[in-house]
Amino acid sequence: MSKVQDRIAASFARQSLMTTLQAELLEAAEGRVVIAAPIRPGFLQQQGAGHAGVTFALGDTAAGYAALSRMPEGREVLTVEMKINLLSPATGRRLIATGEVLRAGRRLVVVRAGVVAERDGATGPVAELLGTMIPVDA
Amino acid sequence: MSKVQDRIAASFARQSLMTTLQAELLEAAEGRVVIAAPIRPGFLQQQGAGHAGVTFALGDTAAGYAALSRMPEGREVLTVEMKINLLSPATGRRLIATGEVLRAGRRLVVVRAGVVAERDGATGPVAELLGTMIPVDA
Amino acid sequence: MSKVQDRIAASFARQSLMTTLQAELLEAAEGRVVIAAPIRPGFLQQQGAGHAGVTFALGDTAAGYAALSRMPEGREVLTVEMKINLLSPATGRRLIATGEVLRAGRRLVVVRAGVVAERDGATGPVAELLGTMIPVDA
Amino acid sequence: MSKVQDRIAASFARQSLMTTLQAELLEAAEGRVVIAAPIRPGFLQQQGAGHAGVTFALGDTAAGYAALSRMPEGREVLTVEMKINLLSPATGRRLIATGEVLRAGRRLVVVRAGVVAERDGATGPVAELLGTMIPVDA
Repeated sequence: MSKVQDRIAASFARQSLMTTLQAELLEAAEGRVVIAAPIRPGFLQQQGAGHAGVTFALGDTAAGYAALSRMPEGREVLTVEMKINLLSPATGRRLIATGEVLRAGRRLVVVRAGVVAERDGATGPVAELLGTMIPVDA
Repeated sequence: MSKVQDRIAASFARQSLMTTLQAELLEAAEGRVVIAAPIRPGFLQQQGAGHAGVTFALGDTAAGYAALSRMPEGREVLTVEMKINLLSPATGRRLIATGEVLRAGRRLVVVRAGVVAERDGATGPVAELLGTMIPVDA
Repeated sequence: MSKVQDRIAASFARQSLMTTLQAELLEAAEGRVVIAAPIRPGFLQQQGAGHAGVTFALGDTAAGYAALSRMPEGREVLTVEMKINLLSPATGRRLIATGEVLRAGRRLVVVRAGVVAERDGATGPVAELLGTMIPVDA
Repeated sequence: MSKVQDRIAASFARQSLMTTLQAELLEAAEGRVVIAAPIRPGFLQQQGAGHAGVTFALGDTAAGYAALSRMPEGREVLTVEMKINLLSPATGRRLIATGEVLRAGRRLVVVRAGVVAERDGATGPVAELLGTMIPVDA
């Protein structure tokens, strides 16, 4: 495991919401992080699809770790703001969120994330996120 | 309980994520809905504050029900898009999200929500959300 | 004119887009700034209403100056990000944008703005904005 | 000129703000539209860079026409909401905005746009936009 993977895995393990959502870190490269979580009975909205809050949590976390992957040691990032556009209902077996860095500045990092759902062996788009992360001391 | 409260309470009870987050519906009036949830061990980010995904879920849900409160019977609403600005870390005993309707159009409803945290008997601002809901058949 | 008004008026006068849009600064208090501009032939979209770009420019500028009003001397602010929800078409005589500070942090300022249109002596809602400003050296 | 190009060029010509901003339509394909405008003396903010309102207007318009390119004849689109993240100051010779469709639904179209600036023969990132368009009768 690379140093970047190591740091992200350690921070991810401390996010108790990720444990509650049964999320796992699938990939952690520089500038790109992938997270997945099952669409389970306790995570739904009133029509039986995954709740937008779950989709948001995964996208935001993937985007945050993409930003962290570009930070020096001893830094963390916090979400300043994040916008999500929901493209289709979160139905299927699990959600996969891919976070990427659009622009890493000295004071702020602009990130995006895409969330897809796995259904019957294929994936379909669920959401697109665009936001801002800020470095803080760990 | 009024008809509006009734409909919202019934829909809220079907949102399994709200149960997972131990959220409760505090108020459901026409154009204004208040939801609260405790900041608990399973809902945190890596620094021990409430995860942005939890704050988002509460704000989005409060805003969605504010929109629903203005819909005729037999309709539901879905989130089209939602933006959250995080104002301070979600620390304290519980989060309280207040959703309101800014503009109820025929095809779309524009909503906002504010989220505050209860700390030592007072409340402090945590997040502001602005988004769009779309009516769908229930 | 107060010191805050003075600084904002001086900065506003240097924004050549505001001159192009025939915008004027109506009010500049601490944490609250009001700007207006006529809906004129050169500022329209394809259906003859004011262009969303004009509504955005006014809302963003009012929000930015609301943030500036809370900064010490020798500072300017830049827009980090801004979201606009359009509530109704920008029709009428002129647009009035009111910017306010939601949260002034040390590193970032969260702002909102509302834009209304004057029509037949009354005003109607046109847009709501929510965004982030960052202080920079002037 | 294809039918799509034709429709977009005709609508673009009716947007008087685009004329005011000296914008031109560089490309209009299905799902992808490119617009450019010079960074000129009348379009600036207080520090002499292009105003965020201009960057927004170009990105929003490119995104809107990308959505229109996927609509049947006799339809127009309006912006429901749009978020812009500013990546670097809009300095250089001209701005180029590329709009794309992320998801074309029956009731709404989700779009993005990227804006770059031409400086010394190269281009650098200026802004990223993510938003929603709604079809209306022309």
